[in-house]
Amino acid sequence: MEVDKVVCLPRLSRVAVCGGTHGNELSGVYLVRELLKEEKKAMEEEEEEEKPVSVVLVLSNPWAIQQCRRYVKTDLNRCFTHASLNGPLSDSAPYELIRSKELNTLLGPKGSPEAVDLVCDLHNTTANMGLCLIAYSDCDWICLHTFKHLQASTSNIPMRYIHFDVPKEESYSLDSVGKHGFAMEIGPQPHGVVRSNIYTAMKFGVQHMLDWVRFFNSGTIIEGGFVDVFTMVKHIDYPRDSETHNIIAAIHPQLQDRDFCLLHPEDPLFQTFSGETLRYKGKEPLYPFFINECAYYEKGIALSLARKRRVMIPAIRVQTEQEQQASEQGFGSEEEE
Amino acid sequence: MEVDKVVCLPRLSRVAVCGGTHGNELSGVYLVRELLKEEKKAMEEEEEEEKPVSVVLVLSNPWAIQQCRRYVKTDLNRCFTHASLNGPLSDSAPYELIRSKELNTLLGPKGSPEAVDLVCDLHNTTANMGLCLIAYSDCDWICLHTFKHLQASTSNIPMRYIHFDVPKEESYSLDSVGKHGFAMEIGPQPHGVVRSNIYTAMKFGVQHMLDWVRFFNSGTIIEGGFVDVFTMVKHIDYPRDSETHNIIAAIHPQLQDRDFCLLHPEDPLFQTFSGETLRYKGKEPLYPFFINECAYYEKGIALSLARKRRVMIPAIRVQTEQEQQASEQGFGSEEEE
Repeated sequence: MEVDKVVCLPRLSRVAVCGGTHGNELSGVYLVRELLKEEKKAMEEEEEEEKPVSVVLVLSNPWAIQQCRRYVKTDLNRCFTHASLNGPLSDSAPYELIRSKELNTLLGPKGSPEAVDLVCDLHNTTANMGLCLIAYSDCDWICLHTFKHLQASTSNIPMRYIHFDVPKEESYSLDSVGKHGFAMEIGPQPHGVVRSNIYTAMKFGVQHMLDWVRFFNSGTIIEGGFVDVFTMVKHIDYPRDSETHNIIAAIHPQLQDRDFCLLHPEDPLFQTFSGETLRYKGKEPLYPFFINECAYYEKGIALSLARKRRVMIPAIRVQTEQEQQASEQGFGSEEEE
Repeated sequence: MEVDKVVCLPRLSRVAVCGGTHGNELSGVYLVRELLKEEKKAMEEEEEEEKPVSVVLVLSNPWAIQQCRRYVKTDLNRCFTHASLNGPLSDSAPYELIRSKELNTLLGPKGSPEAVDLVCDLHNTTANMGLCLIAYSDCDWICLHTFKHLQASTSNIPMRYIHFDVPKEESYSLDSVGKHGFAMEIGPQPHGVVRSNIYTAMKFGVQHMLDWVRFFNSGTIIEGGFVDVFTMVKHIDYPRDSETHNIIAAIHPQLQDRDFCLLHPEDPLFQTFSGETLRYKGKEPLYPFFINECAYYEKGIALSLARKRRVMIPAIRVQTEQEQQASEQGFGSEEEE
């Protein structure tokens, strides 16, 4: 790829902003409710006018939201694989499986031309991760440009781009239903709690994401650059009692809250409940994240580890209508300026 | 009360340390499990010997612990009123009501001479409260001396004594089953998460509490002094939508995490989800605590407010056997040195 090439990409006409995919991650729940209120007010006050982007606001798991729980029967955000979405639905199917198919109808169908152009799914974590975009791709220029724009905006919250290197057909989360998509994950915030600073950071993130989409749709060439991408390498579980499977150690105090600070071999990893220090035995220094995330105790994840690399992203602009028609007929989508 | 008087109090022969009264407050769960493990090991390694104090270790709500939830059907820590403990038990009684009666049999009966001498019930909060002892009395010298001892110990965690001014017959929490009792409440920690620093602070608190009980039982005169007591005055709920009852504001960022910092009239209290600041309209400066505690959203409490006053506590010593017998027969228990 040469730096002077501009990649032309289809217009982002429909964007979904989803909150409450996990019902006790409250920033997204209250932000989507607030945006719904604003939308209602705007509709009452103004004439309907042609918008540069249509925003679909979704409360993903209303039953879990009502109970302020992550999920009712099973984790909704693991239900969006092709296999699950296209499989049969028995009478005893868990609520979240039914709901995932409803959401796929509303925002997808996943993988089809009818799917929304971009899904931004709002999440919170108890880990000290700041604002992260989590995506399945390290070469989705829409996701990476959105991130680059957020990072360039004035905010006092640290931002990172996390890449889960999962094959497209195995992608499982709500954001995978859109043509592009990411989770916007912000912490630290206890689940079941809303903290003003985290809510404000999420509001900021969503507003700047939508601003960027409008800017992109306006036809301006958006210059390229570099983005640090953290690609997930592996998860580490808590040390556990072999009989009871109960955890026998917590994250070491020297590691707690130090997400994205390089973890070196022999650095303290856990502190057992009797006071002993357990060290990181990996051979490669890696970047820890999701350190002590509440919801991952049941998934057997005490922290995840990532490799960091710098990704060059090209200049992009939105396709003209003619280009889009040509592209849909199978012609190329890159041009030289 | 004159300063040179020494108050003689009955021996503290049996102390209960309880964890998991709320099943997702994990420091107490893991600490009690660790202490049970140590107890088992000590029993295997040593001859049974006469202990200066007998410690009963309890996991209060095993079913909630297993599910990592605060409670299964109803808040166990509101089930210990005399009325509830002595009322009938229907077939459809919630689990926690059944369990409260079991615990009353094990540690009480509440109000009887058979009750354990001291209950230390371990709790966590998402609020930035440090270590607090919460008790129903501001003149229970055992509770206040324990607190004074903890505060004098070397620890980098701030400590406060909170007094809930509830009539004895209305006391509702597990710690009210003992002759003396308090909750040891430590935060900030998200529910469902265990943080090393909070676990270590709790371990420190329990060890020093037990050290003090042994010291008291040894017969030494323990000198008096002063303790700051925060007496709860009132609770404040979140602003709510009149139709949906959903909250429409979060704790203001200038108040969040500032537990026990004096709140003055007109100080910022909430920030609405549209960004507006709501101020404290009370006329008296008061001390906020339990600011943004996760479990109190459902109870309609955004924060509690307290008045602070300095309480003088007398020197105490344990009664001799003769004194204890005399005291049980109705004679006085104060002496001049």
